[in-house]
Amino acid sequence: MKNAALKRADAGAVEKAIAALHAKLGNKVVTSMEVRRQHANTTTWLPNEAADVVVYAASTEDVQDAVRIAAAHKVPVIAFGTGTSLEGHVNAPLGGICIDVAQMNEVLAVHAEDLDCVIQPGVTRKKLNEYLRDQGLFFPIDPGADASLGGMAATRASGTNAVRYGTMKDNVLSLKAVLPNGEVIRTASRAKKSSAGYDLTRLFVGSEGTLGVITELTLKLSAIPEAISSAVCPFKSVEGACQATIATIQSGIPVARIEFIDAMAIRATNNYSKLSLAEAPTLFLEFHGSEAGVKEQTERFGEIAAEFGGGPLQWTTQAEERTKLWQARHDAYFAMMSLRPGAKALATDICVPISKLADAVLETEKDLQDMKLLGPIVGHVGDGNFHVSLVIDMDDQDELSRVKVFLDRLTERAHRMEGTCTGEHGVGQGKMKYLEAEHGPVVLDMMRSLKRALDPDNIMNPGKIVAI
Amino acid sequence: MKNAALKRADAGAVEKAIAALHAKLGNKVVTSMEVRRQHANTTTWLPNEAADVVVYAASTEDVQDAVRIAAAHKVPVIAFGTGTSLEGHVNAPLGGICIDVAQMNEVLAVHAEDLDCVIQPGVTRKKLNEYLRDQGLFFPIDPGADASLGGMAATRASGTNAVRYGTMKDNVLSLKAVLPNGEVIRTASRAKKSSAGYDLTRLFVGSEGTLGVITELTLKLSAIPEAISSAVCPFKSVEGACQATIATIQSGIPVARIEFIDAMAIRATNNYSKLSLAEAPTLFLEFHGSEAGVKEQTERFGEIAAEFGGGPLQWTTQAEERTKLWQARHDAYFAMMSLRPGAKALATDICVPISKLADAVLETEKDLQDMKLLGPIVGHVGDGNFHVSLVIDMDDQDELSRVKVFLDRLTERAHRMEGTCTGEHGVGQGKMKYLEAEHGPVVLDMMRSLKRALDPDNIMNPGKIVAI
Repeated sequence: MKNAALKRADAGAVEKAIAALHAKLGNKVVTSMEVRRQHANTTTWLPNEAADVVVYAASTEDVQDAVRIAAAHKVPVIAFGTGTSLEGHVNAPLGGICIDVAQMNEVLAVHAEDLDCVIQPGVTRKKLNEYLRDQGLFFPIDPGADASLGGMAATRASGTNAVRYGTMKDNVLSLKAVLPNGEVIRTASRAKKSSAGYDLTRLFVGSEGTLGVITELTLKLSAIPEAISSAVCPFKSVEGACQATIATIQSGIPVARIEFIDAMAIRATNNYSKLSLAEAPTLFLEFHGSEAGVKEQTERFGEIAAEFGGGPLQWTTQAEERTKLWQARHDAYFAMMSLRPGAKALATDICVPISKLADAVLETEKDLQDMKLLGPIVGHVGDGNFHVSLVIDMDDQDELSRVKVFLDRLTERAHRMEGTCTGEHGVGQGKMKYLEAEHGPVVLDMMRSLKRALDPDNIMNPGKIVAI
Repeated sequence: MKNAALKRADAGAVEKAIAALHAKLGNKVVTSMEVRRQHANTTTWLPNEAADVVVYAASTEDVQDAVRIAAAHKVPVIAFGTGTSLEGHVNAPLGGICIDVAQMNEVLAVHAEDLDCVIQPGVTRKKLNEYLRDQGLFFPIDPGADASLGGMAATRASGTNAVRYGTMKDNVLSLKAVLPNGEVIRTASRAKKSSAGYDLTRLFVGSEGTLGVITELTLKLSAIPEAISSAVCPFKSVEGACQATIATIQSGIPVARIEFIDAMAIRATNNYSKLSLAEAPTLFLEFHGSEAGVKEQTERFGEIAAEFGGGPLQWTTQAEERTKLWQARHDAYFAMMSLRPGAKALATDICVPISKLADAVLETEKDLQDMKLLGPIVGHVGDGNFHVSLVIDMDDQDELSRVKVFLDRLTERAHRMEGTCTGEHGVGQGKMKYLEAEHGPVVLDMMRSLKRALDPDNIMNPGKIVAI
């Protein structure tokens, strides 16, 4: 069921809203096409759909002012952090007001004893970790890009550390959000756990700006481990690498990172970074703990790997050598891009139960080969989550149609294997078409009911997740 | 805002619903007052409010049948597992149909490689762990009572292991639920993580049966650790025990359990279990890991404890000795009851940021003393969560009024210290009056909007959390 709201806001209403914004927020309001297009930037092939106006909010009150004006004129609101989302989350298909929160980038409090902090949504994860380092604390979620934490919460981001530290769903204790009517809520207290009513925190995490604009976050922090060990281990086969991952987790080794890179991605990084790694399916690992603990964990992993055709295992606890050892993983993205100069990368992700991972990767590799597509695979295999980074000539229409078929098949595979069409990128615009196959029509209706109940005029990031 | 639905179902409608249930579900339908009263049993002083009829459901289809009949006649539905909830969650203040899911107690699948299992909601945590033991797996959430896992999900239960393994929110991967219109949804796939839309799993976890009836759960499992070390350590002061807890967690020691028992509870267990523990604030701990790992963790805790006036530390990795060492903690509840034969226990809980825990416990102990109430304190201090188990003469009206004042002050203290009125027991009926102070009116309105959107006729466990 779609309702009439899914159309562009009336031009007169937009004009009035922009006038009201100018009057209320002065030079925080920008309407130049260049700025508007920058804010609708996506890293995929989705067309750029610019908002009508960009507001640089400096406070929760600014956000409230902008949302109240949007509500009064029934004009869409699109929240913007760093624009590193991957599925068109910040596009404005119906126009409207883009609220850029990047300048709301203060760390408001660090409670070291409670292992939490309170921040504004524009703080990026790297900035937060720099801020925290002196106190022996860190925020573990690492999606790759130096994304804003507000955006990471909105898309339920995760990344390489999730196998041990969880995703944004597990690391946001509470948040403040401006609702579609301009009112502000705080979803929970600072207590580590609560059973006091519906879990609004988790409802906002992953809601992609469709229920409100996040203006403050209370995040769970972790202690910087005493020792970190990094390891790299090539395998004879994809199955071997996946089986070793399963056995490692089953045996209770608290691995902090366990990343898979397929042979093609290794070849790419060998070329790009002048390395000479074996061109084989490879696991990159990190262990966190005491000096003795990480040594024991690493050695036990080495024994498990050997059982599944893995080795030789290289590992170190020295910071500089760790960086070098993981260089191929760090450089993977640029290495992939270098495979085809002038081409564009389209990153997609699925997540399956880990027992199905080897099959999922192998079928995907075969599809790539059969369809003559270039797409190295890297994955957070401890979670059964992997990415295909398609490197595409965007001017080749035939290639583009093959990519579309490939993506549909990839998602169909995830569903057939009891998995999800996106482990960490989110739905945005790009994956809306897969939701009904994933959840069924009753769940989609339920999601629409939720959205309608909380945003009856459908002004919050319309046209994303479940368009109503 | 309350609406007209918050009244007892029309007697004629109830009669018709019962007739329809008999016709559809035969001898699964029971109307004897004894059975109805058993199903409204609460472990607090809240009055027993029986449903009009109890249905022993054997399948999701039975639940659907019962809910469809309830929906047709606009009669309330109350789901029942083991009846061990603490705040009147299974009471039927407006009458209606109690759906007992205890017979839906099959483990449907264990996916050892994926560390998950699929179960029916009537499986209790002890039964599940017996079932899993041979496979080297366990489900870590331990709220004390041998509760049904459906109920534990519905109340967002946690307990002693939560400091390391999280709460039900972190350990339910997906669930099936019958919605108020009788339709069935599955909230998520079996993938370990997903960003595919609103987090309906977390919306149902902690919703206390007010959005639907849970009929299946996919749970995350953990590997049984190679070694377990148990430890007991008395402290000179409550502050010392709390500071040692903070320092332990800050230092990154992955403690699996860290339980506080105050001096009065120790005195009670000394009497009850013929022990001779020092009558001091005491920490009971458990460490999970490799043989070498738990030894290292335990010893490092011992060093930290000594810094904060703790010791002597007793510890062991032998199963039988571990049980003996923790005997006081295991017996605490019965020991407390033995303090005043004939009296009843009323268990309540709050949760505060761990930095405020010592103050919260000390103020609470002072209140108990000033108000001449008997209430030993035990707590999951790694989470800042503690329980007061008031031992009350229910016939003493003066004592009862002092208890009411005490409970209001306890909650006010939790809120003043940035905490929550319930860390793990839930809202039910007992804590509804504290929700507005905790969340504010806008959040409560939002919760009511959610409830109305998903259960427009207000048939699902009405009169709980936020009565609409």
